[in-house]
Amino acid sequence: MSRTRKGTPRRDGFRMPGEFEPHAGTWMLWPERPDNWRLGAKPAQEAFAAVAAAIAVAEPVTVGVSASQWENARQSLPEAIRVVEVSTNDAWVRDTGPTFVVDGRGRVRGVDWAFNAWGGLEGGLYFPWDQDDLVASKILDIERIDRYRAPFVLEGGAIHVDGQGTVITTEECLLNPNRNPGLGRADIEKGLRDHLGIEKVIWLGKGVFNDETDGHVDNLCCFVRPGEVALTWCDDRDDPQFEISRDAWERLREARDAGGRRLKVHKLPQPGPLLITKQEAAGVDTCEGTRPRQAGDRMAGSYVNSYIANRRVVMPLLDPRTDARALRIVKRLFPRREVVGVPAREILLGGGNIHCITQQQPLARGVRLVARARPRRRAA
Amino acid sequence: MSRTRKGTPRRDGFRMPGEFEPHAGTWMLWPERPDNWRLGAKPAQEAFAAVAAAIAVAEPVTVGVSASQWENARQSLPEAIRVVEVSTNDAWVRDTGPTFVVDGRGRVRGVDWAFNAWGGLEGGLYFPWDQDDLVASKILDIERIDRYRAPFVLEGGAIHVDGQGTVITTEECLLNPNRNPGLGRADIEKGLRDHLGIEKVIWLGKGVFNDETDGHVDNLCCFVRPGEVALTWCDDRDDPQFEISRDAWERLREARDAGGRRLKVHKLPQPGPLLITKQEAAGVDTCEGTRPRQAGDRMAGSYVNSYIANRRVVMPLLDPRTDARALRIVKRLFPRREVVGVPAREILLGGGNIHCITQQQPLARGVRLVARARPRRRAA
Repeated sequence: MSRTRKGTPRRDGFRMPGEFEPHAGTWMLWPERPDNWRLGAKPAQEAFAAVAAAIAVAEPVTVGVSASQWENARQSLPEAIRVVEVSTNDAWVRDTGPTFVVDGRGRVRGVDWAFNAWGGLEGGLYFPWDQDDLVASKILDIERIDRYRAPFVLEGGAIHVDGQGTVITTEECLLNPNRNPGLGRADIEKGLRDHLGIEKVIWLGKGVFNDETDGHVDNLCCFVRPGEVALTWCDDRDDPQFEISRDAWERLREARDAGGRRLKVHKLPQPGPLLITKQEAAGVDTCEGTRPRQAGDRMAGSYVNSYIANRRVVMPLLDPRTDARALRIVKRLFPRREVVGVPAREILLGGGNIHCITQQQPLARGVRLVARARPRRRAA
Repeated sequence: MSRTRKGTPRRDGFRMPGEFEPHAGTWMLWPERPDNWRLGAKPAQEAFAAVAAAIAVAEPVTVGVSASQWENARQSLPEAIRVVEVSTNDAWVRDTGPTFVVDGRGRVRGVDWAFNAWGGLEGGLYFPWDQDDLVASKILDIERIDRYRAPFVLEGGAIHVDGQGTVITTEECLLNPNRNPGLGRADIEKGLRDHLGIEKVIWLGKGVFNDETDGHVDNLCCFVRPGEVALTWCDDRDDPQFEISRDAWERLREARDAGGRRLKVHKLPQPGPLLITKQEAAGVDTCEGTRPRQAGDRMAGSYVNSYIANRRVVMPLLDPRTDARALRIVKRLFPRREVVGVPAREILLGGGNIHCITQQQPLARGVRLVARARPRRRAA
C-alpha cells in the first residue's frame, strides 16, 4: 500500500519538517544482536524500553522487532506501545527508518535512503545489512505512506533540518568515499535539496571524536528551533573534541540559514570522556566482520543526541558529573516542553544514543482524522 | 497498543458480524513452507496473489509474510496491497488470525483463540506452531485493536455466523478431543456464546470428506445472509460425501436460528473428486511431523470455501466439469455482488481454499474516519 513515487519530494512540494514540529508518533527498533549489545542485549533492551516509555507519555510509539524477539519485546513494553514485527540487523531506526516529508496539503510521504551499515565493506560496522535496508519500506507499508527511494546512501542521523529550508550535516560523513564514492559535494547538496526540500546546506567538518558513524551530525549539533542550534562542547584543549567543537562553532557562527539568518549556538557540556569497562566489553560476543567493543575504547557520548517529542525532550543521562548541568541547559532551551533524562550508558555502549534509536513520524497538518457519526450502511 | 481485555466480548456488548457485513479490509498470509506447498510454494504464491488482487479491487488487503519472503511477496503483489512482516508456520489466516467482533458504538476488537495446528500432537498437521499462535496478536497490534485471549482452542474456519446471534459449526471439529479435551458440548457452546456474542449454536456432524482440519464448517456450509446457507452437495450415493452432506442438510432443515427462523439451504455441487497427482506430490518436501502429500490422496475441494468481500465474492475454480455451474449458483445467491472465480487448485493442494486464506476485518459501523480541515497547531 506504500506506492513508490517517481521524481523527488522537492518536485512534488514536500519538505522534511523540523523534529520540533508536531509528531504523529515515534518509531523505534528493538536491540538484540549479541555481538553489539552486551549480555544478550538485555541491559540495552531495558534502556530502550525506558526511552520508549518516556516518549509514549507524549505521543504514540511503535517498536519494530524481529520474530525471535517479538514475544519478549511485547512483554517488556507497556501495552500502550505498539509492537510490530520488523526484522533488522541492528536497532538504529534514525539511520535505517524513513525520513518523513510533508506538504502543505496534509500529506506525508517517506524517503527511503540506501543504507550500507555506515560504510559498507570499507569501514562499515557489520555485514550483512540487508534487513536494515528494508526497514524504511516496511514502516511505510505498515503506515500506508508513499515512498521515494533515494538513489544514494544516507543515514537519518547524518542530517538535521530546521523545517524552513536549512540542513546541517558533516563533511566527515557525507563526503566520505565509503558512502557515495561517485558523488562530490555539489551532487550531495543536490540530493539533499531534492529529497529534503531544503535550500541551504550548512557544512560542519568532523563529528564527535571517535564516533563510529563517521561523524553523524546528530551527535554533534542539532536544531532546537529555526535559527538556534545546540552544540556539544569541550573546554579541555588537550581533548581531541576541543578542536572539533571549536571548528563547528566557527562554521556555525559564520553560516547563514536558508532565511538569511545568523544562527544562535548553545553549548552543551561533553560528558566523560567515557570509556568502555573491561566488564562491559566482556559481555559482547566476538564476531568477525562486526566492529569489536574493547575495554578502554572511548565512546562518543553527547547530550545533543536527545529526542524532541511532542511535549517532551528525552535526554540521555551519561555522566553524574555533567548530567545535571546538561539537563538545566536543555530545559532552558525548551521552555514549553518537559525535559526528562533517561539512563543511557547501555545505549551508548552499542554505538549511539536516544536520537539514533528514534525516528519521528510528523503529523499531517492541515487535516486531522476525527470520528464522525454516520448512518449505517445496508449490507448487500 | 493492542490492550488485552479481561472478560468476554459478550459481556462487553460485542458480536462477530456476518462475513457479508461491510469490511474495513482483508488479511492474508504468504505461503512458503516447502513441506506443504509444492515447488517451493511458487505456484501457491501465484494463486494467493491472484486471490489478493481479486479482493483488493473491492477493499484494502494486507498480506503478512516472514522476513525471508518479504521482498519476494512485496514484488509479487500489486502496490495497492499492503505487505507487513508477520512470521508464520503456515498461511491460514482464517484459522490463525483474530476473529473480529464489533459493538453498536463503532468499536472493533479481536478474539485471539488458542491455536494448536488443527490437533496439536494428536493429529495436528505440523510442529511447531508457535509463530501461528502469535499471528492474531500481531495483527491486532498493527491495527491498534484491543484483544480478548480466548481460553480454549478454536480456528476461525470452524465457525460461521449470521451476525444475528447464530453460529454453525461441526461436531467433528469442535468436539474433537485433540482441540479441547477437557471441554464438553455445553462448555464449547458457552465459549462460543461468550466470544462470538451469539445465542444459538447449530451443530452439523462431519465436515467435508477427508478434510484434514477435522471437518471445518467453512468448507462444508456457510451463511450467505441471515436465514440462508450454502451447502456443498454430492448426488453420488457411492461417494462418502453423499452421506455427510445429506446429514448436514437434514440438520439444517430441522434447525432454527437465533431468531427462530428456519434456514433456506442452497446446494453447491461438489467438484471432483479431486486427487493429488504424482507430479504434484513429487514437488513437496518430505518432513517428519508434517502431514505428507501423497499421489492419489483425495482433496477436500468445495466451492463453499469462497470469500465474501465488500462488493465481490471470490470463488475457487477447481474443476472444469463443475466450475460454471457453481459460479451460476453463487451469482444467484449474491445478486448485489460481482462473483469472480480464481484458479485455486494450488491452494487446495496445501489443504484449504480461498476462505481459509482470508480473514475479514469488519468496518466500524456508526462512526467512520474522515478527514476534516483543522487549524494548524503552533509548534512549541
